[in-house]
Amino acid sequence: MKLATYKDGSRDGQLVVVSRDLGLAHFATGIASRLQQVLDDWNFLSPQLQDLTVTLNQGRARHAFAFEPRQCMAPLPRAYQWAAGSAYPSHLARLRLAEGAEGSAGRASDAPTAPDTTPDAAPADANALQIARGGSDHFLGPCDDAWFGAEARDIDCGAGLAVITGDVPLGASPDQALDGVRLLMLANDWALRNRLPAERATGFDGLQRQPATAFSPVAVTPDELGEAWRAGRVHLALQSALNGQPVGCCDAGPAMRFHFGQLIAHLARTRPLRAGSVVGSGTVSNPGAGKGWHCIAEQRTAEIIASGEPRTPYLAAGDTVRVEMQGRDGLSVFGRIEQRVGGPLNSSAPPTNPDAG
Amino acid sequence: MKLATYKDGSRDGQLVVVSRDLGLAHFATGIASRLQQVLDDWNFLSPQLQDLTVTLNQGRARHAFAFEPRQCMAPLPRAYQWAAGSAYPSHLARLRLAEGAEGSAGRASDAPTAPDTTPDAAPADANALQIARGGSDHFLGPCDDAWFGAEARDIDCGAGLAVITGDVPLGASPDQALDGVRLLMLANDWALRNRLPAERATGFDGLQRQPATAFSPVAVTPDELGEAWRAGRVHLALQSALNGQPVGCCDAGPAMRFHFGQLIAHLARTRPLRAGSVVGSGTVSNPGAGKGWHCIAEQRTAEIIASGEPRTPYLAAGDTVRVEMQGRDGLSVFGRIEQRVGGPLNSSAPPTNPDAG
Repeated sequence: MKLATYKDGSRDGQLVVVSRDLGLAHFATGIASRLQQVLDDWNFLSPQLQDLTVTLNQGRARHAFAFEPRQCMAPLPRAYQWAAGSAYPSHLARLRLAEGAEGSAGRASDAPTAPDTTPDAAPADANALQIARGGSDHFLGPCDDAWFGAEARDIDCGAGLAVITGDVPLGASPDQALDGVRLLMLANDWALRNRLPAERATGFDGLQRQPATAFSPVAVTPDELGEAWRAGRVHLALQSALNGQPVGCCDAGPAMRFHFGQLIAHLARTRPLRAGSVVGSGTVSNPGAGKGWHCIAEQRTAEIIASGEPRTPYLAAGDTVRVEMQGRDGLSVFGRIEQRVGGPLNSSAPPTNPDAG
Repeated sequence: MKLATYKDGSRDGQLVVVSRDLGLAHFATGIASRLQQVLDDWNFLSPQLQDLTVTLNQGRARHAFAFEPRQCMAPLPRAYQWAAGSAYPSHLARLRLAEGAEGSAGRASDAPTAPDTTPDAAPADANALQIARGGSDHFLGPCDDAWFGAEARDIDCGAGLAVITGDVPLGASPDQALDGVRLLMLANDWALRNRLPAERATGFDGLQRQPATAFSPVAVTPDELGEAWRAGRVHLALQSALNGQPVGCCDAGPAMRFHFGQLIAHLARTRPLRAGSVVGSGTVSNPGAGKGWHCIAEQRTAEIIASGEPRTPYLAAGDTVRVEMQGRDGLSVFGRIEQRVGGPLNSSAPPTNPDAG
């Protein structure tokens, strides 16, 4: 089944079930009003949502309405945990190259508190399992403007996958952890690349360089993916576009070095995970250059290697980012993330209400 | 006013108001059942809780009952954000000394993936503002056993203060951020020190070495602290005891280099904070040795400096930790955190249900 959360002016929105082709929706009122409720009591509530979904897909739901992604908050508008891995080694490796290359190109003015342009003092192994917690008190809806405040520089997107878990016991094995996957989504993990050197210099990661993350209109149960969901990975191509131009079409499956069960088990090593934890894959990336890229930093690295300097600029106010994934039947699985960078960046407050965005 | 959350078998518990002397409590039913509800709608609901508190303090509440801290979950049993600063420089400085000293004493066997026993490759300035996000999908109640699984080693406590915020706008100044402080609590931030070198080596912090944090029985509004709450700091002595023996009595006020407004403003630099965000001070620490310590790692550092090796062991199953803070009237402000390390550590599951703990 496919679930979404409609804006209703509240912090948690209203849960709706969505038809397989994303054409129709139906409020889940009477079963649950919020997605977190369903996650808290999955075994009791999810079969009821499944029944409603069957009715909706058969065209027999009496109060169905046209599904409108612009009315969506993130499926889980706020969560009790959000942690994103770096499951695609080529992404990490290129980011590290970019840091070194752009550092030596004299970007010290963008990072006044960075110690120097020396390479990362404690280099992480691109093949090591890495996960970082992010802020989960507010996620962006799929079509919300992304707004980062007056000091935002080097704005980058980062398209990937994410799962929402049920309760996962302390010490769960990767296989046990996979059983805890309740729903899958697409994620657009915004980043402010200019803050990376300063934050890495203090030994603490990601606090200011990771603004609110956006998620796809719908979250889907693994069975919606059919054979494309196997070994803890989604074996489909992710599609990213920048200002309407396709820029990336990487296969999310084979290049994912650590599958979702491994990511979740890593988080569960010294504490259980509670229902509603969101775990991300990090930016999808393929080793070769043929499939393009899902964050600008990777493209800039390629340009530096090719010509000595980056040509693709980071994002500015008004730029748009689109992320989508089609199933083997050609249908959009999760709906589209389609966001605009809000601005102007140098104003101190957003021109429109970001909550309503 | 003072608020607590009683265990009722649910994930969020039942909200109660507690009398100033912590003697009596009263269910907040009819106003709000969960603390997050109150934080989501503070201006409407908190005056009603305040009225109930006045009635309770005057001994006129009809359905009051004896307050029992052992029935408490954390005031906010799960939260949408938990980030702890390192606001006390002497804590950070001693931890860094300890790492170097214990490293050179040949603890490599405890940290198999640590690159070496060299000092931290990217040393952070103990005077720099540092904040790290922690897991907030489950907090421990004040009297819950702390249980970390079979692989837990070098178990340490870490007593400090924490605030729960309302909505804080993006780009808030430290003063504006202070206005967002709704409630204060004590925190016991458990740590598994053996995991530090490995986690630092990958460049990502705190994921496995920070198990679930515990909070005091009650959360209090700033006015409950009177003159002791000023300039964003709590000017009272924190009291820690280990197995019943007092070990620390540091003043939490003057040594706090970054006040809560500064910590919150740091978090709000590129994204707003939403109601219910929990922000911690980190372990309270005073520069001199006279006031003792609030985590074992600091004491071990002092011992290494004095005699060349640590004598105080880290915690083992059955050890107890007590954290409390008295107001100037001698009354306990927040109630007592009083936890036992669960065990045996080498069993794969807790002997009792940790959820019921």
